[in-house]
Amino acid sequence: MIDNIYSLGIDIGGTNTVFGLVDVNGHIIKKDSILTNSSLHPNFLFENIFSTIGNWERELDMSDIIRDIGVGVPNGNYFTGMVVSPPNLGKDWDELNLCSLIKTFKNVPVSITNDANAAALGEKYYGAAKSMTDAVVITLGTGLGSGIIVNNRILYGHDGFAGELGHLVIEPEGRKCGCGRRGCLEMYVSAKGLDYTVKEYKQRYPENNFLKNIKVKKVDGKLLDKAFDDGEKIIIDIYKYTGYMLGRGLAQIAKILSPEAFVFYGGLSNAKHRILDFAKDSMNANRSNYQKHKIKLLLSELSDGEAGIIGASYLNRLKD
Amino acid sequence: MIDNIYSLGIDIGGTNTVFGLVDVNGHIIKKDSILTNSSLHPNFLFENIFSTIGNWERELDMSDIIRDIGVGVPNGNYFTGMVVSPPNLGKDWDELNLCSLIKTFKNVPVSITNDANAAALGEKYYGAAKSMTDAVVITLGTGLGSGIIVNNRILYGHDGFAGELGHLVIEPEGRKCGCGRRGCLEMYVSAKGLDYTVKEYKQRYPENNFLKNIKVKKVDGKLLDKAFDDGEKIIIDIYKYTGYMLGRGLAQIAKILSPEAFVFYGGLSNAKHRILDFAKDSMNANRSNYQKHKIKLLLSELSDGEAGIIGASYLNRLKD
Repeated sequence: MIDNIYSLGIDIGGTNTVFGLVDVNGHIIKKDSILTNSSLHPNFLFENIFSTIGNWERELDMSDIIRDIGVGVPNGNYFTGMVVSPPNLGKDWDELNLCSLIKTFKNVPVSITNDANAAALGEKYYGAAKSMTDAVVITLGTGLGSGIIVNNRILYGHDGFAGELGHLVIEPEGRKCGCGRRGCLEMYVSAKGLDYTVKEYKQRYPENNFLKNIKVKKVDGKLLDKAFDDGEKIIIDIYKYTGYMLGRGLAQIAKILSPEAFVFYGGLSNAKHRILDFAKDSMNANRSNYQKHKIKLLLSELSDGEAGIIGASYLNRLKD
Repeated sequence: MIDNIYSLGIDIGGTNTVFGLVDVNGHIIKKDSILTNSSLHPNFLFENIFSTIGNWERELDMSDIIRDIGVGVPNGNYFTGMVVSPPNLGKDWDELNLCSLIKTFKNVPVSITNDANAAALGEKYYGAAKSMTDAVVITLGTGLGSGIIVNNRILYGHDGFAGELGHLVIEPEGRKCGCGRRGCLEMYVSAKGLDYTVKEYKQRYPENNFLKNIKVKKVDGKLLDKAFDDGEKIIIDIYKYTGYMLGRGLAQIAKILSPEAFVFYGGLSNAKHRILDFAKDSMNANRSNYQKHKIKLLLSELSDGEAGIIGASYLNRLKD
């Protein structure tokens, strides 16, 4: 029997936590999804996770299968092992030394990073950004998260907090964001941003029959995608606007980072070319002539939720 | 007699080219400044430079003193050795393979990068950013140039063109920039930007006695600094506005890169705290609470023009 052969990758979200055993080739051997229940103390979450791992060990007829643990968690800091002011997690998660806590469950090497960085590592080693030295991975979920690869490594900045692309200001007098400023990219390009846009369009075009039947909160993306494909003009306009604002943000990011590609995953990225084609035009329109048409816009090549698990599982291999 | 002991660092500007012999400790042994004369073929510039080096060899009673050559040049590409669409250089400099050209004069290892990256390396190894893993060096000259250090290395992006901070858009409907877009950072924070601001203020306050005596083109920074120190309200306002716009740009950059410090050099940076204090306030006002007051704003610690020479001279040491 071979011990310590898998890395445990954990991707903690505001609602669900997914985790899995990953082998050295980036294949997920076992995985599960549980409620994060972040209003409870984090101990409860890890008791659940390690109880499941106990079950897996019995199923596989193996013991002690975990070599190391990597975690992606909102506002997780790679350098300190701490979680600080995480959005959408309860108060027991703030100022939490997550590495230490996990080691009380299983004393193996533990590394954490923020959830978007974990997903970026997944794409870099096993997904759409494979073989790229410089790429930016953008999660379009409730908000807009990002993980940046510079020179083959995650861009952490001096303190581990680099890469907050969701809060780039693209419209200084624009929509008010939860962060206290106006016009942040995620207020236009995310589930939250799309809700906002639909609401604005409903107010601007109260007589539009299609919009009358659309709910303002948690807009159903599949419904909009179908309407787009059916040529519904108002939805084409809404996607065009969303893509336009995204492209403006990407142009700004490209001026600083000049990545080979932007890779998208998460809910709103399911709209695919319907938004990304407009974003590409807008990005190129906002670049210098000799810089146009150089950067690719790609979709994630990993199954839903797997980029985070696989990327997190890779974290301990990157320690210098 | 010891041969090949110095690195030759060359910093090519639109008007002047400075170059020097640099020893392994980053000390400049000999240096000179000549006109770039970029309307002539680049061969003329290098004939001049190598003729001076011949003189130095005779003075030092040494031969073959150059081990390698590093060059900072506008739009110089580290990966390809090419200069592409360089602003302020003549047409013979466009699409120029500068590495090959230099090797026809002296066949030693040659590396090039853009001028702002060269200065950033100077600051990183011998100046204000010493011992920092992540820093951003900003040149406030006619325009606004930048060299970015991420994880101890220059941020090049996938194609060598990363780090165009001067063209970050901070005011989407703002001043028209030569790059074709509006509201670029350098249209507010640079010699050109200051000229623009003074012109706007003169139009807005035609009766202001102090402004009446100020020329609109190539505003004299020392005169403004003195007026600021004397409490001239209109100049304090102009510097406050300049610092405010700079801070807005720095906040955007900080969200992406989270550097330990921004280091400033070049003409407008001589205004020092008069602009940077306002910039710091504005940067912090545009950051999340847990991110405020973490990033330093510093002035270059190298003599005028030396950062470029020293940084360029370091280029060949960085080849992996």
